[in-house]
Amino acid sequence: MSTPPGALYLVPNTLDFGTDAATSPIEDVLPASVLRTAARLTHWVAENAKTTRAFLKRVDAVVPLAQPLQALTIVELPRPAKGARGSTADLAALLDPARQGHDIGLISEAGLPGVADPGAALVQAAHAAGIEVVALAGPSSLVLALAASGLNGQSFAFVGYLPVDASARAARIRELEALSRRTGQTQLMIETPYRNEALLGALLAHLQPATRVSVSCGLTLPTGFTRTDDVSGWKARPIKLPADVPVVFSMLAG
Amino acid sequence: MSTPPGALYLVPNTLDFGTDAATSPIEDVLPASVLRTAARLTHWVAENAKTTRAFLKRVDAVVPLAQPLQALTIVELPRPAKGARGSTADLAALLDPARQGHDIGLISEAGLPGVADPGAALVQAAHAAGIEVVALAGPSSLVLALAASGLNGQSFAFVGYLPVDASARAARIRELEALSRRTGQTQLMIETPYRNEALLGALLAHLQPATRVSVSCGLTLPTGFTRTDDVSGWKARPIKLPADVPVVFSMLAG
Repeated sequence: MSTPPGALYLVPNTLDFGTDAATSPIEDVLPASVLRTAARLTHWVAENAKTTRAFLKRVDAVVPLAQPLQALTIVELPRPAKGARGSTADLAALLDPARQGHDIGLISEAGLPGVADPGAALVQAAHAAGIEVVALAGPSSLVLALAASGLNGQSFAFVGYLPVDASARAARIRELEALSRRTGQTQLMIETPYRNEALLGALLAHLQPATRVSVSCGLTLPTGFTRTDDVSGWKARPIKLPADVPVVFSMLAG
Repeated sequence: MSTPPGALYLVPNTLDFGTDAATSPIEDVLPASVLRTAARLTHWVAENAKTTRAFLKRVDAVVPLAQPLQALTIVELPRPAKGARGSTADLAALLDPARQGHDIGLISEAGLPGVADPGAALVQAAHAAGIEVVALAGPSSLVLALAASGLNGQSFAFVGYLPVDASARAARIRELEALSRRTGQTQLMIETPYRNEALLGALLAHLQPATRVSVSCGLTLPTGFTRTDDVSGWKARPIKLPADVPVVFSMLAG
C-alpha cells in the first residue's frame, strides 16, 4: 500500500527581512490562503531556520499552527560553495518527507524562494522526482519595483548583483545600458544594502544623461518609496539612500 | 490654500481573469491591506472599466466599499494605436484627481499594472508630475512561474510575445536559446491562450534536446500546474495545454 506523495509548496515570505518593520501584520502582505497553508505544513526546507521560526510565529498569531513550532521539522538548504553546485543526493534527501506523503514548505528570508534567492535547485530536484510544485501568491520586490518604476514592463531582465570592483562594475553598467538601448529592455539589479549608495553613484557616473534610473527602497514598508528620473535629473536633485533597507535598481536607456 | 496631492496606487488584480474560477475568494490571492486600500479608493484608472467593476464587487464582498460602485470614477487608459505612443497630455489629465488631493487606483485585468500589461506610461507621467507612486503587494504570474520552474532565478528575462509568423518565431526561439546559453539567463514568454499549443510545439521543434522548458498553467487556480522537463523529456511525454487559460513559458539552455 502506498501513500500519495506530498507536494512542494513555495511559500512567500514578507519583504521586511532585517528591518524594524518586521513586526507589522503579516496578513497585510500575504493572502489568507498562504497563511492557512503555512499554518498546516509540518515539514519545512528553509534558507534559514531561525528566520523561518520567526515567520511561523507571525503566521501563528493570525492562523494558529496545526502543530506547535517545536514539533515542526525545519531543515536548512545546503549552502553550496561559491561556483560549486549543491549535491543532487543531498537535495533529493530533503524531499523524502514528500515521498512519505507529507507536503513540504520551501521558504527563503524574503519574497519567493528561487527568485533572486536560493531554492531553485530543490525545485528542480522535485520536478525530476515527479513531486508536484506549487508556488503560492506573494509579493516580489522585483516586480513591485518594476511596476512602480514606470519603465518598460513588456520586456525586462533581472541581472542580479553587479561586480564590486569599480572598473568591472563600470564596464558592466555600460554593457547593460547598451543592451537596454538596443532591445528596449528594462534592466533590474540589486545590491547589498550597505553598498546602495555606491551602486547609485556608479550608475549616475557611467550612464548617459537621458537614461532613466529608478530606485525602489523598502517596498511594502511604511517608509518605502520609488523614485524614477533620468540621470541628469538624479544629478540635479540627489538623494541619500538608506544603508539598511533592500533597494531594487532599474534602468532603461533613454 | 492647497490640498496635499494624492498618490497613484498600483492595485494588483487576481490572476483568474476570463476563467471559470473568477468567483473564488479574492482574499485567498490578495492580502488584506490591498483589499482595504481598494475599498477606500474613489478614483480609478483601469485597463478595462467593466472588469474593474467586477473586481470591486469581489472586494466589496470582503471589505465594504467606502462609496457605492456607482459613485466611483472609473476612467479607462487610452489604447494607443500599435507602435504609437499615448498622448502625454491625455495621461496627465488622468492624474488630475491626484492634483486635487484624491488617491488614484491603477488596475489592469490581471496581476500588477505595468508588468506585461498597460499602465507604465501613466506611472511615468506620475513620476514626471511629482505624484507619489505606491505598488501594492500582489501575485505576478511571471514570478510565480519562474519560482515554480526551478530554472535560474538569479538571472532572468521576460521577453513578452514571440512573433506569430512561423519562421520569424523559429528564428527568435533560436536567438533566445543562444542568449540563454551564453548568459545562463532564464527566458520567460507568454502567448495568447489559443496559441499555447502552437508555442509549445514551436519550442520543442526548435530548441536543443537538453534545453529545459517549463510551462506554468493557470497559476493560483485550483487546476493550475507547473511542469519542467528538458526538450527530449517533453517529446517523450507530451501533454496537451488548455486553450483558455493563461500560460507562462520559460526556458534555460541545457
